[in-house]
Amino acid sequence: MSVSSNSGAGLRAAVIGLGSMGFGMAQSLRRAGFHVTGCDVVAANVDRLVAEGGHAAANPAEAARGADVVVCVVVNADQTEQVLFGPSGAVEGMAEGAVFLSSATMDPQIARRLADRLEATGRLYLDAPISGGAAKAAQGQLTILASGTAAAFAKARPALDAMAGKLYELGDAAGTGAAFKMVNQLLAGVHIAAACEAMAFAAKQGLDLAKVYEVITASAGNSWMFENRVPHILAGDYRPLSAVEIFVKDLGIIQDMARSARYPVPVAAAALQMYLATAGAGMGRDDDSSLARTYAALSGAALPDAVTPKA
Amino acid sequence: MSVSSNSGAGLRAAVIGLGSMGFGMAQSLRRAGFHVTGCDVVAANVDRLVAEGGHAAANPAEAARGADVVVCVVVNADQTEQVLFGPSGAVEGMAEGAVFLSSATMDPQIARRLADRLEATGRLYLDAPISGGAAKAAQGQLTILASGTAAAFAKARPALDAMAGKLYELGDAAGTGAAFKMVNQLLAGVHIAAACEAMAFAAKQGLDLAKVYEVITASAGNSWMFENRVPHILAGDYRPLSAVEIFVKDLGIIQDMARSARYPVPVAAAALQMYLATAGAGMGRDDDSSLARTYAALSGAALPDAVTPKA
Repeated sequence: MSVSSNSGAGLRAAVIGLGSMGFGMAQSLRRAGFHVTGCDVVAANVDRLVAEGGHAAANPAEAARGADVVVCVVVNADQTEQVLFGPSGAVEGMAEGAVFLSSATMDPQIARRLADRLEATGRLYLDAPISGGAAKAAQGQLTILASGTAAAFAKARPALDAMAGKLYELGDAAGTGAAFKMVNQLLAGVHIAAACEAMAFAAKQGLDLAKVYEVITASAGNSWMFENRVPHILAGDYRPLSAVEIFVKDLGIIQDMARSARYPVPVAAAALQMYLATAGAGMGRDDDSSLARTYAALSGAALPDAVTPKA
Repeated sequence: MSVSSNSGAGLRAAVIGLGSMGFGMAQSLRRAGFHVTGCDVVAANVDRLVAEGGHAAANPAEAARGADVVVCVVVNADQTEQVLFGPSGAVEGMAEGAVFLSSATMDPQIARRLADRLEATGRLYLDAPISGGAAKAAQGQLTILASGTAAAFAKARPALDAMAGKLYELGDAAGTGAAFKMVNQLLAGVHIAAACEAMAFAAKQGLDLAKVYEVITASAGNSWMFENRVPHILAGDYRPLSAVEIFVKDLGIIQDMARSARYPVPVAAAALQMYLATAGAGMGRDDDSSLARTYAALSGAALPDAVTPKA
């Protein structure tokens, strides 16, 4: 949607959190004509934005001052709450009628609570978790699972156009976008664990793993995650494209939501144990395909040699 | 591969087991020019084959007499062993040099044992589990995961050409085809359980389930099984395209293989419990998407009304 769009001309955006996702989203906003101010706890990330024509702020309040849209791309609900309501939080800088676009994956109940609290001050909140990785963030081709009031959508529209390749409008209440994202994460987290369980099982049976990949990707056992992650195992390349700790967090949120709702998730719970074991063994910051190494360590299965150190 | 092929002209095939898969495979063999003789414990299945120009046999020995290839499409390893070596078993009728093509999903160790025992008598054994469903069986478009000696492949080739849309040749030892099939079944069984866990979780969260299907099938949480099975849940249609009991069996084989190999499969083990619970609740012969009904029953989640009775 962002291709040759100039939807942000004359508009100001703040981007809080300039990691691989947030930095790419800032680039997409700049390309659409937004004046972009960023802040991040890592100074080098801010310098990088400035080098590309963005502007630096010392904290969320300063970044948010005068912004039409504040895009928050931090790790979790706690950080989002700090960004909004902590010391020098965004709410102190935001004008009335400006919109806060919250992209961290979180429990839908917390998204609703943050939205209620912000909207009570006269600002708008859009629940807008994202999917697609750093490359798609930089290309303005993210999938965005958004929900919020009509006013929040209207105010956020130019920024959404700049950042999204696919925008799902999922309802008028904050929390619905977050809930859709959690359903996706339940499946994605289980599928990665299943892919690792199956590949090390195949190795333990002495099968040709490249052939297994060829057969499974053409069969009913395939998943998006199997197709995407198993090449890391075949290459022995565990450099983090998405770290084990992400699913420690996201399947942890699933467990909390499910326990609170009195809903059993035995399959996701089993998968979470393998993420925990892999992080516990020192691979939390490695690629999530590292679960295969845990299965191998627990069974003596021989995987292709790792080309990168374990941790 | 079977399209307008006539590779079976002048050859004789026996098909043991004329259920939905075996009957379709018999049709594909007939279309390729084979003289086909079938047998099944259900007389009506044999009558149906005869009505289409096939021939009837009272038992495997009689069906196998004079056959170049004996295709065995029964439910499991026990039945396969009975077909081969039980009273009036195929081995009594098979000529030396004829090939037994074994398609039931089973533990690779058992496949190897059956192959050794048969080949000691001068007959050939091809380990050839199948994937693809009844429609593809009838169209000669199955995926076949085959392994066996060069002699077994050579003798089976015209029948494989008649039945397979995609033929994987996975090595010269029986058991390898079976092992590939089990890796696929591990993933397929987990993915169905995950799809059901996620959809009933979405229902419990009050989400629009058709929208969840739309979003997930376009996202990283997608799997072949999610895409294929969730429409059954959305339609409330649990008539068996593939029954719960199939994965009770196949994930059971995985557990046995894994326990024997000292390999932990926590995710597949959790999935198996949900198949067992669903079968135990009386839905063993219903579609495997019925796991969603188990999650709903355990949590109060509201799924679309079933258009078919529970059992």
